[in-house]
Amino acid sequence: MKKTAEPETYRNKAVLITGGLGFLGSNLARRLVGLGAKVTLADSLIPEYGGNRANIADIKSRVEVNIADVRDPHAMSHLVRGQDFLFNLAGQTSHLDSMTDPHTDLEINCRAQLSILEACRRENPSIRVVFAGTRQIYGKPDHLPVDENHLLRPTDVNGINKMAGEWYHILYSRVYGIRACSLRLTNTYGPGMRIKDARQTFLGIWIRKVLEGQPFEIWEGGQRRDFTYVDDCVEAMLLAASHPEAEGEIFNLGGCEVVTLKETGDLLCQLEPKARYEQRSFPADRKAIDIGDFYADFSKIRNRLGWSPQVDLRTGLKKTLDYYRKHLPEYL
Amino acid sequence: MKKTAEPETYRNKAVLITGGLGFLGSNLARRLVGLGAKVTLADSLIPEYGGNRANIADIKSRVEVNIADVRDPHAMSHLVRGQDFLFNLAGQTSHLDSMTDPHTDLEINCRAQLSILEACRRENPSIRVVFAGTRQIYGKPDHLPVDENHLLRPTDVNGINKMAGEWYHILYSRVYGIRACSLRLTNTYGPGMRIKDARQTFLGIWIRKVLEGQPFEIWEGGQRRDFTYVDDCVEAMLLAASHPEAEGEIFNLGGCEVVTLKETGDLLCQLEPKARYEQRSFPADRKAIDIGDFYADFSKIRNRLGWSPQVDLRTGLKKTLDYYRKHLPEYL
Repeated sequence: MKKTAEPETYRNKAVLITGGLGFLGSNLARRLVGLGAKVTLADSLIPEYGGNRANIADIKSRVEVNIADVRDPHAMSHLVRGQDFLFNLAGQTSHLDSMTDPHTDLEINCRAQLSILEACRRENPSIRVVFAGTRQIYGKPDHLPVDENHLLRPTDVNGINKMAGEWYHILYSRVYGIRACSLRLTNTYGPGMRIKDARQTFLGIWIRKVLEGQPFEIWEGGQRRDFTYVDDCVEAMLLAASHPEAEGEIFNLGGCEVVTLKETGDLLCQLEPKARYEQRSFPADRKAIDIGDFYADFSKIRNRLGWSPQVDLRTGLKKTLDYYRKHLPEYL
Repeated sequence: MKKTAEPETYRNKAVLITGGLGFLGSNLARRLVGLGAKVTLADSLIPEYGGNRANIADIKSRVEVNIADVRDPHAMSHLVRGQDFLFNLAGQTSHLDSMTDPHTDLEINCRAQLSILEACRRENPSIRVVFAGTRQIYGKPDHLPVDENHLLRPTDVNGINKMAGEWYHILYSRVYGIRACSLRLTNTYGPGMRIKDARQTFLGIWIRKVLEGQPFEIWEGGQRRDFTYVDDCVEAMLLAASHPEAEGEIFNLGGCEVVTLKETGDLLCQLEPKARYEQRSFPADRKAIDIGDFYADFSKIRNRLGWSPQVDLRTGLKKTLDYYRKHLPEYL
């Protein structure tokens, strides 16, 4: 049984989304606008990150857009005031960028998170906060599927900083009563994701290559993964923000099925006749931080909040391809 | 059987110690000077932290002292050059300060660590590094004793930042081959510790009160703890820095015995006739971040590196009291 957020929960509520012009933020905004919320999107629009005005073309008259960087503590302090909910989704997501420029990753994924939580504590302690965590912080799994009691052993600077950023949220919940929780997302995909390059997800660059008639690259191919379609992820965020049982907690998300990268590539080829791929071995710089097979045990959020993924990979990839067939130029 | 560092390992070797005028750093320096090492002590001498020139009064002509803050990346970049070993001990240690000023804690315990490791990677990739981690990052234990596979659930900003700082070291070892490891220290005590206040350890303020003829305070009293005498801690650092099996690894330290805080207080009263204490309940700000019982399983370092604590609590406290009876004014 799918559980959805109560329609009344968000009506006329003030909602701030950091990273609001990005992939997750814009899809969440669309859903919240539909539920009658008053939505403010904060985004830095840094070109290497996920923000893209095309993501909100259809709802731009129904949301407030505020261009600001989460590293700006004064802007954040102002923006959190009067909000009922904060979906704290802004982040540096590129693993490789975190290794070549670790300090920028720290500024965004650690320091800014602490500033945002300090702002909540001072300006708006009754706000409800959902943080976009990542399965990346588990590192290479000891066992599969990976549940929330698995050790955290991040394999790149991004993972370490996201781990710290998540724990600031949990700490501010436990010590100061800020009602915050974290969702550890795993390979979220769908319309609005960055496809210019692989900074957000490798599926982005795959889709781009497919639609440009170029072969995409599969590194190795046997690695197993789970994928969450963005609508399912949005639903989890809405449930987590409104559910008292979520406060101070961490939840894995997951997918309908576990597939290998090669199977995922084959599925794309079935959905788009011009798709083709090349298999190759890992580039050296990726091999050092690769984690092998990964898929998540999401029974905690299923049991506590009633969430489970509804969109299978075939359906999700089809919707994603359909979207980018129409909107490709806006994402290049 | 106690294992000690080979006498030849450090002879004529260049050794940098951050936090070198502090409690751990100065005791380590004394031992290294005895082993014939060329020792440089980097310390910020920030009054609220552990650095104190009195700590090296007896060896000051045999070490280089360089006043610099680990937050100064240029100084650190210069200082790591040409060193065979880095004992990276500088840190903000106060749990309460980390809550009232979380950004300073982040700058020292996260950001500076990343800068130091970047400096090692660029300037001196063959250096061997030992990081002073802390059992604090485990948070409230699920089971006792706590081994290295226990989940990390830090209960204050300091714990989160120390967790990140440790993981940068492990990451730089695994990805870049920097030979770094982390020791998770637990309640280290002995001559040279800060006794002006409880910023470093509650035992510090206890000892001060005892020698000033004032009652010290025991909060609750039933909590069980383990304590490591500083000489044992120094031995562990020397072993870890020189042992190939330590590279990229994390090790708990521990103590000879597990005692309650009240038993520890009673022991002080046996060793110093004028000692007395008052038991009280937790102050509210401490209760929120307290972890209850804690003691560590140190079998990993015992089995892999041959370390075990040698100085029991009675002997260690006696030595500590003897030291501060002579040197009290230099530590107030």
